[in-house]
Amino acid sequence: MGMGGDNRLTRTRGLGAKHQERRAQIADALLRIIDAEGLEAVNLRQVARQAGVSMGAVQHYFRTKDEMLLFALDYVSERGGERIRARLESDSPHRVVLREVLAEFIPADDTRRAELRVSTAFLARGLVDDRVTEHVRQGYAGIHGLLTLLVRRASGAVDPEQTAVTLFALAEGLGDQVLVGHLDATAALAVLDAQLERMVAGPPRDAYAE
Amino acid sequence: MGMGGDNRLTRTRGLGAKHQERRAQIADALLRIIDAEGLEAVNLRQVARQAGVSMGAVQHYFRTKDEMLLFALDYVSERGGERIRARLESDSPHRVVLREVLAEFIPADDTRRAELRVSTAFLARGLVDDRVTEHVRQGYAGIHGLLTLLVRRASGAVDPEQTAVTLFALAEGLGDQVLVGHLDATAALAVLDAQLERMVAGPPRDAYAE
Repeated sequence: MGMGGDNRLTRTRGLGAKHQERRAQIADALLRIIDAEGLEAVNLRQVARQAGVSMGAVQHYFRTKDEMLLFALDYVSERGGERIRARLESDSPHRVVLREVLAEFIPADDTRRAELRVSTAFLARGLVDDRVTEHVRQGYAGIHGLLTLLVRRASGAVDPEQTAVTLFALAEGLGDQVLVGHLDATAALAVLDAQLERMVAGPPRDAYAE
Repeated sequence: MGMGGDNRLTRTRGLGAKHQERRAQIADALLRIIDAEGLEAVNLRQVARQAGVSMGAVQHYFRTKDEMLLFALDYVSERGGERIRARLESDSPHRVVLREVLAEFIPADDTRRAELRVSTAFLARGLVDDRVTEHVRQGYAGIHGLLTLLVRRASGAVDPEQTAVTLFALAEGLGDQVLVGHLDATAALAVLDAQLERMVAGPPRDAYAE
């Protein structure tokens, strides 16, 4: 899913590089715990142990569990966002970029699998916590906007907004099915490609060859 | 999502009607708590209070929190399954039935919204708990099989399996977007209808008029 809206926690405090690095180290530890045991298992003590720092250090960087969780959500979103930006700046045809961005939602490797498990945990939490809901909703809106832009560039689709919603929802649903083990990533990507074929006029399929 | 595989907990013990009713009463209380506060908030004391029974009564019916959660997942799946069976037995054209079954994944009313929130909570938990994962995976397989059958009946689709996977993933992804508040249910249903139009040859759109 790669959700999460702005990046308030990292940006608003003019944090130094060391501070940032330590926070990222703690966030990595947190993600490993969430990935292995789910959000509900997270506590400060466990995060400190996993990150190899003191309880006091964790508390120095994050006053509450919620603050830590929101930082982790931003962190996951940032990483996904960086990969997407790198793709947008590449010379690939627009339709190939669109396909690559959609494929981010399908857990085809360990990194993406871990990130998507974390995003799913947050989605579930988002449904009962207004602050997380707002974050998640902003993330959806951002992705939807980006996909609409890419669809518009890649094709003469009649309704780029609706095409973007369709492709986004499909990719996300496929991602869930792969996470749960109902589909494998290759089958999911084939379904995604067939839908692109159906909805987005563009270069011949060969353009996907790597 | 309406997930969850077999129905072991309710079937294997030859429970009397009273017993069943009491378990359903506890499951309802449990669902209300999960819907409002998420799975992690669930504990025996709170469930007993919400159901208006003693802690001992809850413990009589469910030895562990996990057993109670699995019963609730079965219970949600059962309710969804009953609605689907009723639709399968109706005289509606196959394509209308297919559309109605897919629409079950989009939270257009309070009951479905609550059930889908619960299913999403279980999906997140399923990713870290093998017993739940297996349950969820069986649920996906069952739904996929049913949708493949409906697609085959409703149309001359070239590849009913793949058509079913596509429609299922799309409906589930749309459901998530509605749950989070990014889309409203009407817009999501319009996306679903457009996809049916694209993939499943069938009676004219008027057949959906109610």
